[in-house]
Amino acid sequence: MLFNTNIRLTLPVVCFVWQIAMIILFGVFIRYDEESDTHWVETKAHDNITSDIENDFYFRYPSFQDVHVMIFVGFGFLMTFLKRYSFGAVGFNFLIASFGLQWALLMQGWFHSLDPQTGKIFIGVESLINADFCVAGCLIAYGAVLGKVSPVQLLVMTLFGVTLFAVEEYIILNLLHARDAGGSMVIHTFGGYYGLAISRVLYRPNLHQSKRMQGSVYHSDTFAMIGTLFLWMFWPSFNSAITDHGDGQHRAVINTYLCLASTVLTTVAISSLSQKTGKLDMVHIQNSTLAGGVALGTAAEFMISPYGALIVGFFCGIISTMGYIFISPFLEKTLKIQDTCGIHNLHAMPGVIGGIVGAITAAAASESVYGKQGLINTFDFTGDFKDRTVLTQGGYQAAGMCVSIVFGVVGGAIVGSILKLPIWGDPADENCFDDEVYWEVREPEHQESIPPILEYNNHMIHKQQDL
Amino acid sequence: MLFNTNIRLTLPVVCFVWQIAMIILFGVFIRYDEESDTHWVETKAHDNITSDIENDFYFRYPSFQDVHVMIFVGFGFLMTFLKRYSFGAVGFNFLIASFGLQWALLMQGWFHSLDPQTGKIFIGVESLINADFCVAGCLIAYGAVLGKVSPVQLLVMTLFGVTLFAVEEYIILNLLHARDAGGSMVIHTFGGYYGLAISRVLYRPNLHQSKRMQGSVYHSDTFAMIGTLFLWMFWPSFNSAITDHGDGQHRAVINTYLCLASTVLTTVAISSLSQKTGKLDMVHIQNSTLAGGVALGTAAEFMISPYGALIVGFFCGIISTMGYIFISPFLEKTLKIQDTCGIHNLHAMPGVIGGIVGAITAAAASESVYGKQGLINTFDFTGDFKDRTVLTQGGYQAAGMCVSIVFGVVGGAIVGSILKLPIWGDPADENCFDDEVYWEVREPEHQESIPPILEYNNHMIHKQQDL
Amino acid sequence: MLFNTNIRLTLPVVCFVWQIAMIILFGVFIRYDEESDTHWVETKAHDNITSDIENDFYFRYPSFQDVHVMIFVGFGFLMTFLKRYSFGAVGFNFLIASFGLQWALLMQGWFHSLDPQTGKIFIGVESLINADFCVAGCLIAYGAVLGKVSPVQLLVMTLFGVTLFAVEEYIILNLLHARDAGGSMVIHTFGGYYGLAISRVLYRPNLHQSKRMQGSVYHSDTFAMIGTLFLWMFWPSFNSAITDHGDGQHRAVINTYLCLASTVLTTVAISSLSQKTGKLDMVHIQNSTLAGGVALGTAAEFMISPYGALIVGFFCGIISTMGYIFISPFLEKTLKIQDTCGIHNLHAMPGVIGGIVGAITAAAASESVYGKQGLINTFDFTGDFKDRTVLTQGGYQAAGMCVSIVFGVVGGAIVGSILKLPIWGDPADENCFDDEVYWEVREPEHQESIPPILEYNNHMIHKQQDL
Repeated sequence: MLFNTNIRLTLPVVCFVWQIAMIILFGVFIRYDEESDTHWVETKAHDNITSDIENDFYFRYPSFQDVHVMIFVGFGFLMTFLKRYSFGAVGFNFLIASFGLQWALLMQGWFHSLDPQTGKIFIGVESLINADFCVAGCLIAYGAVLGKVSPVQLLVMTLFGVTLFAVEEYIILNLLHARDAGGSMVIHTFGGYYGLAISRVLYRPNLHQSKRMQGSVYHSDTFAMIGTLFLWMFWPSFNSAITDHGDGQHRAVINTYLCLASTVLTTVAISSLSQKTGKLDMVHIQNSTLAGGVALGTAAEFMISPYGALIVGFFCGIISTMGYIFISPFLEKTLKIQDTCGIHNLHAMPGVIGGIVGAITAAAASESVYGKQGLINTFDFTGDFKDRTVLTQGGYQAAGMCVSIVFGVVGGAIVGSILKLPIWGDPADENCFDDEVYWEVREPEHQESIPPILEYNNHMIHKQQDL
Repeated sequence: MLFNTNIRLTLPVVCFVWQIAMIILFGVFIRYDEESDTHWVETKAHDNITSDIENDFYFRYPSFQDVHVMIFVGFGFLMTFLKRYSFGAVGFNFLIASFGLQWALLMQGWFHSLDPQTGKIFIGVESLINADFCVAGCLIAYGAVLGKVSPVQLLVMTLFGVTLFAVEEYIILNLLHARDAGGSMVIHTFGGYYGLAISRVLYRPNLHQSKRMQGSVYHSDTFAMIGTLFLWMFWPSFNSAITDHGDGQHRAVINTYLCLASTVLTTVAISSLSQKTGKLDMVHIQNSTLAGGVALGTAAEFMISPYGALIVGFFCGIISTMGYIFISPFLEKTLKIQDTCGIHNLHAMPGVIGGIVGAITAAAASESVYGKQGLINTFDFTGDFKDRTVLTQGGYQAAGMCVSIVFGVVGGAIVGSILKLPIWGDPADENCFDDEVYWEVREPEHQESIPPILEYNNHMIHKQQDL
Repeated sequence: MLFNTNIRLTLPVVCFVWQIAMIILFGVFIRYDEESDTHWVETKAHDNITSDIENDFYFRYPSFQDVHVMIFVGFGFLMTFLKRYSFGAVGFNFLIASFGLQWALLMQGWFHSLDPQTGKIFIGVESLINADFCVAGCLIAYGAVLGKVSPVQLLVMTLFGVTLFAVEEYIILNLLHARDAGGSMVIHTFGGYYGLAISRVLYRPNLHQSKRMQGSVYHSDTFAMIGTLFLWMFWPSFNSAITDHGDGQHRAVINTYLCLASTVLTTVAISSLSQKTGKLDMVHIQNSTLAGGVALGTAAEFMISPYGALIVGFFCGIISTMGYIFISPFLEKTLKIQDTCGIHNLHAMPGVIGGIVGAITAAAASESVYGKQGLINTFDFTGDFKDRTVLTQGGYQAAGMCVSIVFGVVGGAIVGSILKLPIWGDPADENCFDDEVYWEVREPEHQESIPPILEYNNHMIHKQQDL
């Protein structure tokens, strides 16, 4: 039995064992940081902090909640567009994000904030945001394999995805000292290529056997718009959640807000151009309108200037929509990459654009625009990096992008091979994109909409046939 | 006519009379507090407050908005899972919450913050949060009787529910001086038992007559996930909304965030175990994933430590899901409690667990962990309570939980008896769970999905039959 | 061909050209303000600002995000109620809001904040809120013509709408110095009459030809409740988003919260009264429950007192629901105004009420209630207006309302005439309210719910017919 989708043993075991492992590791490593510990009253006195409002919580909590909504409602509902995979979309998204954020707190803690003296990781609201960010990378990858894998595979994919993420993030942000507050490179480029590489390894030549389940119905497309809009609206919070207090957060919000608005118009334009009578395609509106947020992940905190943000959005809308029209079919046919949600167009390509935009705008930064102290603050030219020039910074930004691509592709290829083992309970080709494989669906699909009056009529028909 | 569902007289009368009563009572009692009054400029000068940002508004408003979303979208949409009761779920939830919050401002004001000199209640953002909390108790109770009562009954239930809530809250928080920032006891335990007791009194032996209306359809389950996710995502705001400024809010968020993540994994594990081939059940995913938030309502602000939060979530996911599998059928069969949404598994049981966790963690608190001032701040060992030990505090916490159970059960039994009077317009057994009783539903159910082509065919059939 | 709905040329051209114009104009005019610029570190030092948290970002960003949700999810989903126009509702809303906010930043900038020295417009978070507000006016107008116009017409309507908005806003807020923080006059009255006037000019005598597409289905009504609730819940943020820091924002939230709660009860009462057996109508619940928020747009920041807010809500619920029952049919029949969403009842009438309430409460303001400095702060009696009395202020408030009506009616009439030109690709009467005109809908309507088993049966029928 190559396709035994019984996961009654594997899924509970993985959930229990991993969750118990989390508890043990949290017990050993994770503690409250000084702003979330009851000793903060002493810290305040010691550091001469006059008001509770200076707690980092008040700078970041509203953004955190927005990011949290993006992760669970945004990504979850964006993937409900398939006519019969809404439970899997929103439910498995929920499951893997919940596991992933715990593992991310540990992995990111070990790499970024392990206290050398105590051997502990101290967490606060910024850690929670970073954990959500890390999870986002894995949810992006889920988009490529949506409907074709089992929840156990998704959990495995998340375990390795978070691990790889923490390492590449450490290399890019700490060793290369690249800036990437909204994660164009670290989150979207990595997550995109990670998912695409996995999907390539798991290529299903006979996927057309489940063709009847692909595509959307009217209400599933409407559900997906909930995901789209919450991602779109809260993307300014995403890109500003961990930028510098004050002008850093303020500017990242303005840039992302403008960039996304611009993306919507060009997405609509290209979508309309692509159809004979100018009709719009919901796939483009659901996805490509978000490309601008991805592409401003690196440069949102820079002085890219409002019209600069508009320009980035302008081109992203065009490129992403064209990706759905031209590149996705090409990838599937030629490169054998089956990309259910089109993450190549929404995350991978715009992520690379974001990395390039970041490198260029960093290299072009100047003291006259940023101010002396502003330049130091924005690029964190302090400590070991205090003598770095903006040109060098641009180079390191570009290097960072290469790192994220390499980690995505190579990591995805390896993890894909693991997921190819015939032990994970993935569905047969003819059962892909069907919630009935992993969910108790109360009415079987073909009965859902039989109204009583018709059942009666069917009855009549049979009687007639009997005659 | 035992089941006259005509509410054209009663519903408008109740709405008008009660709303007018609210206006009069607000006119007599309710005023802006000093932070929302135009005189704040003088208060600021007098108290040497240097910045507007020190207004409590900025500490609590983001949390308030999240709580507000939980009350109206969270509770409302969570209950839309029934195939044909979405209007009632989200609409009546809207109605009773809107009435309840006004009445709660008065009741909580009289008990907690009536100014003895002026005889006025001064309200600010924290009052709004508390009113929303109070309403939550009644919405929980609604879950037990969903689909079986009229909107008039729901309003009556809310009137008494808010009243009982304010009294038990006063006893638990003020007299016993128990801590319960997220309301494990005050909100969830009380609300849960209140609803269950009412449902017991209103037991319908022939409820199976509306069996065809019970259960969900595909899209109604997807709608319910909107409710689930907004509750889940914003629960950290719920448990931290009225905790201490600074580290208190910060810590409550971290604990709740972690606890809920852990709950998701064990819920999935048990749900999968409960089915032959390991399929997941949407009922569990929609509800049991939230149990961890309930159970951390009391202890969220304590130094329960991150791994402690994970442990609470771990067990809550298991217990709540098992509740749906084993306890709910038992309650219905043996104790004659028909619990539409399973609030026993989502609120009552986890609420009690939360009370116990709170009592234990309070009793185990120590100066070495909390710091001297931290201990005083966390448990508010000031004024009359300045000599209380943590062990005593643990005892009072446990006593508080008993109070909430007693108020829920006894209050619910009495209110249930009132609601049994045959004057409230509740539906007949065969009409339960059907929106057509109280809503103008444009298409009758059996016509909704007749596509034109089929109508044509039906026509054909009839013609054939005529032949 | 009067009704050529091919927009493959016009829509992309308009999107591209206008977006490029935006980029150029932003390049010339728009810059970061001092709180979002990297030079803020110098501003802070210069102005002796001690903490980053004093950045206006932290006062307004949570409110901004709520407003943003109202614009895109609130307005978008509120309009999804039609059975087959959800894509158009949420999708075109998305498109015109994204264009409108860019154009609003420019128009409002030129009129309100053009720096005379540099010729630049400096933007920050408050500018983003104002841009969203400006867009709201156009989205209200969209409600009147929903389903009857092409996306190109909507874009034209938005271009002129934003322009008119900026001018009337300048007259009302700057020249007349009226207060209108939540936009009862500036946003709702203007937007309402603007849309109604356009709808009048575009009157379609044969609209009954698309009667089968009017009205809702069960799930489309549930989707619309998502819009309703997010508007309702976040309206306190809307009315407080740009009020004074501190008590101003705090008070506006309390007033709006109370007013809206009161509206829900009277809406339910009148809705129930309007039907033979007291059944509720979703149209009323979806719309009239929001009227209180509209009507408190001007007075929310005043000392209207909590019971005053309840009274406003009380009457608005009644009037708005009665509007749906009596006035809308009258408008359609007698005045030939076809108002798809009933914006007359939700925005225009409550907006006028809001203007009147604002004028009266302003005229009745007194130093004894507000305090000397409080009065000055609330009505901004400074500079040129420092000697204005509250009575005069009341008069100017009333004048402001007249300005907004005139701009709405006259502006709408003119813009309507432009939209009547037969070049915009609007749908024929029999194709109104149908997404298939402008969207790729994967299944044609009549096939959506044909389950396989029925297709088989149909097959059978045909065979029988053949016999």
